[in-house]
Amino acid sequence: MTAETIFVGTEILLGNIVNTNGAYLAGELAKLGIPTYYQSVVGDNKERLSEVFKTSLNRSDVIILSGGLGPTQDDITKETVSEVMGKKLLLDEDSKRRIVDYFEKRGRVMTDNNFKQAMIPEGAKVLDNDNGTAPGVVIEDNGKMVILLPGPPKELSAMFESKVIPLLSAKTGQTFYSSMVKICGRSESEIAEVLDDLINMTGEVTVAPYAKECEVHVRVTASGPDEKSAKKLVKPVVKTIKTRLGNSIYSTEEDMTLEKSVVDLLIANDLTITTVESCTGGLVAGRLINVPGVSDVYKSGYVTYSNKAKRKIVGVKKSTLEKHGAVSHQTVKEMCLGAAFAAKADVSIATSGIAGPDGGTPEKPVGTVFIGCNVCGEVITKEYRFTGNREKIRSFTVSEALVLLRECILKYYGQKTFGGSDNV
Amino acid sequence: MTAETIFVGTEILLGNIVNTNGAYLAGELAKLGIPTYYQSVVGDNKERLSEVFKTSLNRSDVIILSGGLGPTQDDITKETVSEVMGKKLLLDEDSKRRIVDYFEKRGRVMTDNNFKQAMIPEGAKVLDNDNGTAPGVVIEDNGKMVILLPGPPKELSAMFESKVIPLLSAKTGQTFYSSMVKICGRSESEIAEVLDDLINMTGEVTVAPYAKECEVHVRVTASGPDEKSAKKLVKPVVKTIKTRLGNSIYSTEEDMTLEKSVVDLLIANDLTITTVESCTGGLVAGRLINVPGVSDVYKSGYVTYSNKAKRKIVGVKKSTLEKHGAVSHQTVKEMCLGAAFAAKADVSIATSGIAGPDGGTPEKPVGTVFIGCNVCGEVITKEYRFTGNREKIRSFTVSEALVLLRECILKYYGQKTFGGSDNV
Repeated sequence: MTAETIFVGTEILLGNIVNTNGAYLAGELAKLGIPTYYQSVVGDNKERLSEVFKTSLNRSDVIILSGGLGPTQDDITKETVSEVMGKKLLLDEDSKRRIVDYFEKRGRVMTDNNFKQAMIPEGAKVLDNDNGTAPGVVIEDNGKMVILLPGPPKELSAMFESKVIPLLSAKTGQTFYSSMVKICGRSESEIAEVLDDLINMTGEVTVAPYAKECEVHVRVTASGPDEKSAKKLVKPVVKTIKTRLGNSIYSTEEDMTLEKSVVDLLIANDLTITTVESCTGGLVAGRLINVPGVSDVYKSGYVTYSNKAKRKIVGVKKSTLEKHGAVSHQTVKEMCLGAAFAAKADVSIATSGIAGPDGGTPEKPVGTVFIGCNVCGEVITKEYRFTGNREKIRSFTVSEALVLLRECILKYYGQKTFGGSDNV
Repeated sequence: MTAETIFVGTEILLGNIVNTNGAYLAGELAKLGIPTYYQSVVGDNKERLSEVFKTSLNRSDVIILSGGLGPTQDDITKETVSEVMGKKLLLDEDSKRRIVDYFEKRGRVMTDNNFKQAMIPEGAKVLDNDNGTAPGVVIEDNGKMVILLPGPPKELSAMFESKVIPLLSAKTGQTFYSSMVKICGRSESEIAEVLDDLINMTGEVTVAPYAKECEVHVRVTASGPDEKSAKKLVKPVVKTIKTRLGNSIYSTEEDMTLEKSVVDLLIANDLTITTVESCTGGLVAGRLINVPGVSDVYKSGYVTYSNKAKRKIVGVKKSTLEKHGAVSHQTVKEMCLGAAFAAKADVSIATSGIAGPDGGTPEKPVGTVFIGCNVCGEVITKEYRFTGNREKIRSFTVSEALVLLRECILKYYGQKTFGGSDNV
């Protein structure tokens, strides 16, 4: 069984929006183990959509179309697909009622053109839209499954996850189970080497690494007649990966982030934290504070961009700045100790670097960054050399700061307190 | 003349990467006035790429393929396209030398498979790659123009801008000229109303608005036999937009950002700035500090996430927090005055809000944010209600803080000092 996806919308062809639905559906179909060989984008044009759709019917078993289900004259996906498949459009009373309700609840005036969205191809299955007005549609005919989904990413993903995955799983006769192993502080090539045999395994379980900024995520997937048997195949492989990578793994939870794993570690060890940032200028704090509940551990932080601010606010010594410069092991050490003192925090993290485009020297070129981390008085400082533009260098610094934070807390408390160990 | 784009790469079909090249090329072709009716994605598979490429040759005049030009056996774009078009691949000595140089300069060892990238279809034009090893290729045959570009976005965009745009302009016989008018502090629907007649103009000049976070960008495009005549058509339309939107326009420069326009205003008026952030926790500072040269105006800033930090670091009164709460006009007013005093800065910006998911009340639901801005002692505070998740609410707050900063500085100094007025 193969699938292909068609995205309908002139706004994609004009480059006004990035087709994130493309990557989303591709990833979901891959997780389901359904090969996708083609993706197409076509505008709100009946003739061209019709041509692309006919081609897809000739080469794929499952065709997923997204977009063009709205109330306007431009929205032609349902009409075009129905015409190609020789289906009449009939008013679906249930869908009509849902649309009326949707507007009433929001106290908004509904115009008559909205009923267009309740017209469903005969014999088709309706997929209720819990996040908008346009229902999805599934047409099964001649061994083909044609699935129409709304274009807005939030509506599409919610509908796909709750309604389409069960249908596709039933069709493949296979249930897929996957675990995501999230690793930080190791390069993609290192991971590829350590897991080489697993990545190249042929058989029921697939192991695929994905490189992220300062992280590598490894997805382990297997299929079986039911979830239990698929899970049984995944579990020992995840266990092997854990044995090989140990504390480099920060989570096996899908929605865990590196910053949340750091905040969880702080909470688990009853530690407070502060930040003192030069080149990242607030971005480390910004990422930590994106974790709900961070107020238990984070009270205050400092942006010390000038040398004067480094001296005045967190007490870096004038002689240190003169002798070693603001971008040095010594300065970030004093920054993080001074910040911990000022904020009365147990843990502190400091950044100082040359983000460019100017300010580089032969000795400390653009991209040179020092990060210092203090856990209860024990300080580790590291030097990094990043490449890329100013934004990229700053972003890498933030990620490496989180990696270093995690490493230092684990080191100080020993592996026994590894916050996520039960879940991993 | 119509174009279409084909993106080659199994990693796109697996959802491992988002096809940002798709939106980029779509936008660039739209700017050139070349209609694009189709976009396709196909994996690293000769048979399927061949099929998709043949279809494109039958329906479009210009076909742009991206990806699959690398050194590995998986990279088959050049080979497949050459085969379909009946062209032999020949070694291009210039390209070979560039590849050898590329590795030498970086002190990296080159493997022989890299020479595969120097094989060029007979009669094709080579597009040198200034950012990588794989050269681009242009084949013109039978009235069709086939353009092969490398997949990495940075290589693709640099090559497209410096080498492909001139070729396409020559082919259309038209030169395109466009100006981007960047607006902040006004909603998309407001802009659409104010510029309604311009947006709906039929003729040589097109006016298209693009909504961004707290910004609207309006692109004015025209074509002519040469740049001068195209520019002549664009200029009066831009002038009309300026007359109607005045100070809401922060720039007409392509690479100007809202944060850079704020930093430019500060520099122009010889003002220093500090930040004091609660819900945004460092992100306003983070965005300002992304502007190179910001060190002239930004020295230090504060993240005051807890009430205690608001009191201790920037002197918010206990009675203010008790009476009005941390999320209030009064608190952000005291925060920005206190921060200005502590940092000895002329200008300060303060944020405090409920980013969620918890912490909302019926009176101040999640999404309630206050921003305060002080320019030389004159303070303006505003209340906002944002929707979306924690990340979205924080991101909106940062953008609105920049909009408010700009507004307050302009107000204080009067319109005469509008930093960008000469360029707009």
